[in-house]
Amino acid sequence: MLFNKQLKNIKSYEGGKPIELVVREYGIAEKDIVKLASNENPFGTSQKVIETIKLNAQNVQMYPDDSMSELKEALAKKFDVTRKNIIIGAGSDQVISFAVNAKANRYKKVLTAKTTFAMYDIYTKQAGSNVIKTPSHQHKLDEFIRIYRKEKDKIGIIFLCLPNNPLGECLDKDDVFSFLQEIDPNTMVVIDGAYQDFAQAKDPKKGIDPKELIENFSNALYLGTFSKSYALGGMRVGYGISGEEIMSALYKMRPPFNVTSLSLKAAVTALEDEEFVKMGIKNNFEQMEKFENFAKENKIDFIDSYTNFITFIFDGKKNSSEIAQLLLKKGIIIRDLKSYGINGIRITIGTPEQNRLFFKEFRSLL
Amino acid sequence: MLFNKQLKNIKSYEGGKPIELVVREYGIAEKDIVKLASNENPFGTSQKVIETIKLNAQNVQMYPDDSMSELKEALAKKFDVTRKNIIIGAGSDQVISFAVNAKANRYKKVLTAKTTFAMYDIYTKQAGSNVIKTPSHQHKLDEFIRIYRKEKDKIGIIFLCLPNNPLGECLDKDDVFSFLQEIDPNTMVVIDGAYQDFAQAKDPKKGIDPKELIENFSNALYLGTFSKSYALGGMRVGYGISGEEIMSALYKMRPPFNVTSLSLKAAVTALEDEEFVKMGIKNNFEQMEKFENFAKENKIDFIDSYTNFITFIFDGKKNSSEIAQLLLKKGIIIRDLKSYGINGIRITIGTPEQNRLFFKEFRSLL
Repeated sequence: MLFNKQLKNIKSYEGGKPIELVVREYGIAEKDIVKLASNENPFGTSQKVIETIKLNAQNVQMYPDDSMSELKEALAKKFDVTRKNIIIGAGSDQVISFAVNAKANRYKKVLTAKTTFAMYDIYTKQAGSNVIKTPSHQHKLDEFIRIYRKEKDKIGIIFLCLPNNPLGECLDKDDVFSFLQEIDPNTMVVIDGAYQDFAQAKDPKKGIDPKELIENFSNALYLGTFSKSYALGGMRVGYGISGEEIMSALYKMRPPFNVTSLSLKAAVTALEDEEFVKMGIKNNFEQMEKFENFAKENKIDFIDSYTNFITFIFDGKKNSSEIAQLLLKKGIIIRDLKSYGINGIRITIGTPEQNRLFFKEFRSLL
Repeated sequence: MLFNKQLKNIKSYEGGKPIELVVREYGIAEKDIVKLASNENPFGTSQKVIETIKLNAQNVQMYPDDSMSELKEALAKKFDVTRKNIIIGAGSDQVISFAVNAKANRYKKVLTAKTTFAMYDIYTKQAGSNVIKTPSHQHKLDEFIRIYRKEKDKIGIIFLCLPNNPLGECLDKDDVFSFLQEIDPNTMVVIDGAYQDFAQAKDPKKGIDPKELIENFSNALYLGTFSKSYALGGMRVGYGISGEEIMSALYKMRPPFNVTSLSLKAAVTALEDEEFVKMGIKNNFEQMEKFENFAKENKIDFIDSYTNFITFIFDGKKNSSEIAQLLLKKGIIIRDLKSYGINGIRITIGTPEQNRLFFKEFRSLL
């Protein structure tokens, strides 16, 4: 059977190995596995969210409220915008797909950093378009602007991942706003803020306020997620915030009932439990210091991280894939970056206990 | 901002009005609202599913197991196929979107009955393609074959909704298999079996066995859902079953983590609780008879239904939109079919108590 020709281009996304897989493949007991591979919240689910899920478990035969008004109201309040500025996705990555499918095509490409969230590339190819990448792995705005000026007519969307997954660096807000001044209002600029709350906690200069963003730039789309600090990775909830014009296009690409009823309820409760989120962020940067010290002691390069993970870059004497494999056999799951063309690993900052285990096992491999 | 031109064509799907909306708009208490609009299971969620959700509520910070092996295993067993024949979607309608995006384009259109599941049309337009519709509202295979022969080069996918939502009729399996013999192996034929378990219970001649289907036709894709008899409308789980070639294309269009972790667990348990499903189907056809009798007594035409809903067709003296609106004010939500060009309403078969209320209120409008 012949399929659309863009399918030839598509390689599926490979997520962090799930615990279930390591149990099956390596015969390690579930309780002995430390997963530091998918930037999940290491403190588990908030107690309040657990209660909400239990309370609403008895009514899941009904379709979700597709207006999603309760969650939109809560997000509108948090960001001081209106409900009409908000769209909810099954993870922010679904909102990426709406944007790409609304705007990219054979003639209009997508501009990203060389090493950034893999789904930008996958959704772009699924839409029959292509990604143009900057020469540097990390975000360099001068490279973005040089390419944009040269290829302006060919570029429909620019993605800035702030901070950047899987590397951890983050541009300053002032630089991003200056950059946006240079971009034609007909080019969409997506600010992916999946890890923004970590960045803002570490350095206010990195903080992007969605309200200020969309008030100044009608072509900007801000993305947020409940999968990281809000600890709902399994529930698949994220959101987009933009002005009316982009929002109306995104809604045309949204399938109905795209978020489950329990996910909507869980997200509303997660937003209310700010204490849990703050505690996680505080632990994150306390523990991040231990990773930095470990790297310095062992002469491993690392990228200054504004997220809940840290990226170690190895010299030629170490091989990231071998290290990832050896750690896996000990029940420690981290992310190898070899497929990005980087001899390095990305480690999610875990609980103090998880991190101690990682340090112990990793040290034995050095 | 300029968007892809197909967006001009797209009208969003309008689902059945959610109870929350009727509470807000009409000030009716939630307990007094009878929703017979979205073909949900009127007996609520299976107790076993509720227990499963509660049991797994404490771990939703982790991303779902993207291999979905537990649910695929259970479905493979149920249908006597292999895991490699199965893809899981956020509702079967997500699998529709994978199929359409893999196969339809500006040159390859989609062929459907005139009045059928609205998402075929919406996903087709989102993909920048168009739907060709048969002249008759209900499925007439001679119309499908006539159009197909004439426009063969232009048709990439044919959708057969068996039984058909929102009308309720169902083709016989033998006729469908004879039809498939006439179709080029390069044209994909999607058999949407969202309501198949109802049809099979009423008349075995309607039953389509996915294994037999895909063993005989490499170009066939079978769709099933957990939203109807399995009572998981709010959890968004459905599946596709096909041979390897189609499956490999669908996987290229699937985003990772497209189903929540609780949805996967709930679906596995729902499959195990066959008693609950059987009880619902038994009630459905017992109650369906009451709807048929009611229609006959009141001289209302209806379509012989193989589903969990029934469609009443009105003569010129009644207006379906007015009736839907009057019922809504009394807290009864049904589906007006005016937007399909039909002066009729679709009513989900409810519990005996819900149906009594519907009959009482509807009778007062006649």
